[in-house]
Amino acid sequence: MIIPVILSGGSGTRLWPLSTPEKPKQFLPLVSRHTLFQETLKRLEGLPALSAPIVVCNELHRFLVAEQLREIGTKAAAIVLEPEGRNTAPAIGVAAALVMASEGMAANSKPASGAILLVLPADHVIADAAAFRVAVENAVKAAEAGRLVTFGIVPTHPETGYGYIERGAEEGAWWGVERFIEKPDRGTAEGYLANGRFLWNSGMFVFSVAALEAELERHAPAIHRACKEAAAAAKIDADFTRLGPEFHASPSDSIDYAVMEQTDRAAVVPLDAGWSDVGSWDALCEVLERDTDDNALRGDVVSLGASNCLVLPGMRKVALLGVDNVVVVDADDALLVMQRGQSQRVKELIRLFRSERSD
Amino acid sequence: MIIPVILSGGSGTRLWPLSTPEKPKQFLPLVSRHTLFQETLKRLEGLPALSAPIVVCNELHRFLVAEQLREIGTKAAAIVLEPEGRNTAPAIGVAAALVMASEGMAANSKPASGAILLVLPADHVIADAAAFRVAVENAVKAAEAGRLVTFGIVPTHPETGYGYIERGAEEGAWWGVERFIEKPDRGTAEGYLANGRFLWNSGMFVFSVAALEAELERHAPAIHRACKEAAAAAKIDADFTRLGPEFHASPSDSIDYAVMEQTDRAAVVPLDAGWSDVGSWDALCEVLERDTDDNALRGDVVSLGASNCLVLPGMRKVALLGVDNVVVVDADDALLVMQRGQSQRVKELIRLFRSERSD
Repeated sequence: MIIPVILSGGSGTRLWPLSTPEKPKQFLPLVSRHTLFQETLKRLEGLPALSAPIVVCNELHRFLVAEQLREIGTKAAAIVLEPEGRNTAPAIGVAAALVMASEGMAANSKPASGAILLVLPADHVIADAAAFRVAVENAVKAAEAGRLVTFGIVPTHPETGYGYIERGAEEGAWWGVERFIEKPDRGTAEGYLANGRFLWNSGMFVFSVAALEAELERHAPAIHRACKEAAAAAKIDADFTRLGPEFHASPSDSIDYAVMEQTDRAAVVPLDAGWSDVGSWDALCEVLERDTDDNALRGDVVSLGASNCLVLPGMRKVALLGVDNVVVVDADDALLVMQRGQSQRVKELIRLFRSERSD
Repeated sequence: MIIPVILSGGSGTRLWPLSTPEKPKQFLPLVSRHTLFQETLKRLEGLPALSAPIVVCNELHRFLVAEQLREIGTKAAAIVLEPEGRNTAPAIGVAAALVMASEGMAANSKPASGAILLVLPADHVIADAAAFRVAVENAVKAAEAGRLVTFGIVPTHPETGYGYIERGAEEGAWWGVERFIEKPDRGTAEGYLANGRFLWNSGMFVFSVAALEAELERHAPAIHRACKEAAAAAKIDADFTRLGPEFHASPSDSIDYAVMEQTDRAAVVPLDAGWSDVGSWDALCEVLERDTDDNALRGDVVSLGASNCLVLPGMRKVALLGVDNVVVVDADDALLVMQRGQSQRVKELIRLFRSERSD
C-alpha cells in the first residue's frame, strides 16, 4: 500500500508576482489547466496499491487545498495543517506518525502496517508521468526491502542550484548512495555532468513508515518526539487535521539533513522524466511548450517579431513587439518584465518593493 | 492680435495602447502633469497680444477639451466641433472663416481685423518654450508682412519620417521657402542634415486671416467655399460651436498640400527648441527625462539592472529586472511590451488585435 504524502507548504516567492504568500506556486495552473498540486496527484493515477493521499500544508492554504482536491475528485486521507512551516523533516515525520497511530485519519483510510510513504513536493513538474511511475515502482521495491529511497534526477545540464547525489553500487532496480553533495560551483557541476554517476537531489522520497520512524528516532530524536506527540494530540476539524501544539517544539530541518544524509539505509532510484522544480521564471521557461518563435504565450497575447518570450495570464490583452528573451508576468497587483536569465534576482525585487512601501 | 488655433483632432494610434480613439495622445499627460493639449496652450503664456484660442476638435472629444481647458483656467474663444475629420486644411479654413465672420465666437472674443492665426497641433512637445515664443514673434512679423509662415525644425538627426523644407533667401527674421520635400530616404536625409539648408516640416503655421483666406480661395476653392458656408451656418451650443453640414462637402486635404506648397507667399522660421511630434513610443523615449540608468519610469516602478527603458502608468506596481531598451505601457485594457526601435510597427499590432477579435 502506497500512501502519497504531498508536501504543499512551500511559499514559492521566486515566481513573484504570480506566486504570492496567499497563493503560492503549487496552487497555480502554470503548465496545464491543472495546478501543480493537482498535477502532482494526477500523475500517480495508474500506480498499483495506491492509497488516498495525505496532504501537509500551511493552515493559510487549507481551503485552496480542499477546493483543488474537490476539483479533481480526489478524497484525501488527511489534510494536515502545519501551524507553522518547520521544513520537510517534521512535515514528513508527522505524516508518518499519523499513519502509525491511525490518528487524525479518515476512518476508511486506516493503513495496513507496512505502508509505504511516497513523499512528493506539490510544486514539481514531471513531463513523463509513465516514466515517473516506473521509477516509483522500483523505489517501492527498495522501500519494501527496508531502504530509504530518494529519486536522483539524471542531469541535463551543469546546474549549480541543486544538491547532487553520487550513486554507489547498483542493487537491481536501485543504487546505493555514495554521498550527498551540496550545491557545486560551475566547474564541479560540469565534471559531475560528464562523469555520469552524479544525480540531482530531487526532494522526492519513498520509504516504509516503519523504516522512516526508526531512522528519524535514531538520527533526529527531537523531531521524532515532537511529531509523535503532535500527531497523538491531533484533532479532526471538519475536513482538516489540526496538529497538537507539540509541533512547535520540533526543530526545523530538512529530511535530507535530518535523515537521508545520516542513515546507512539510503538508496537512490534514477529518474529521467522531464523533471523540474519550477524554481524560477527561467526554469518555467524551460518546461513550457513553445510556439514556432520559441515563445510560450498564455492568455490574450499578440506578438510581432518576438522570440524566446514567456507571457503569463492577466486579465488584459498583451502585445509583444520585437522583444527577445523577455518574461512578462501580468499578475493582479504587479507586473514583472524580466530578461531571461535574471530570475535569481526576483527575491531582491520583492525586497525593493517592501522597502519602498515602508518609506 | 494673435489667435491660437489648436488642432486637436488627431487620433494618435501610434501610441497605442495608452492613446485610444476615445482619448488620443493630445489629451494624455505624457511628459508632465499637464496633457500635451494643455502644454500647447501653456507654452504660449508670455506672448504679446495673445487672444483666446480657438480649439478645433472631434465632436467625440468635446468634454475632454472643455474639462482640460477648465483645469488650466483657459477660456476658449471657441471650441469648434468637426463632425468628421477632414485633415488640416478644412480645420484651419473653418477657424479662419469663423474669425472673419465673427460668427460662432464668444461675444467678448470678437477679433480685430488683421488678426494673426497661430496654428498649432495639440500633440507636439517643445522643451524650450521661451525659444519657441521668440520664433513665434518672428513668424508674426512675417505674417504681418503678408507671408504664410511655417516653422522649420532644425534637424537633429537624419529622420526619414518627416517632410523637409529647403529654405530660400534670408529675409530678416525669416527665410523664403525654396521647396517642400516629401519624406526622404536615409541617404538623402543624411545629406540634408549635413547641408544645413533643410528643415523638418513641423505642421505649425502663422498667417493673417486675410492672407490665409486669399490663398485658400485661390488654391483650394472647394475647401474655401465649404468652410465659409459651414462657418456661416455654425451654431453655438452651450460651450461648443457646431459647424453647418456644409463642412462635409469640403475635400479632405492638408494645409501643406492645399496652400503652403502652392502659394508664392510662403516663408519659414527656423525653430531649434527641443521639438517633437511624439509620433511613436521611440519618439517619446527621446523627449522624457531619464534617471541615472537612462530609464524613464512613471508610476510605481522598481527596476533592478534595467537600462534605457520606458514605463508608463497603469494602476499596478511594475518591476523591471535586467531588461534593456524595453518600452512597457501598462494601459487599462492592454499591456504593450516593446523593444525600442520597433515603434513603427504598433499599427500592425493593432490590426492583429482587431483581426483576432473578429475571428
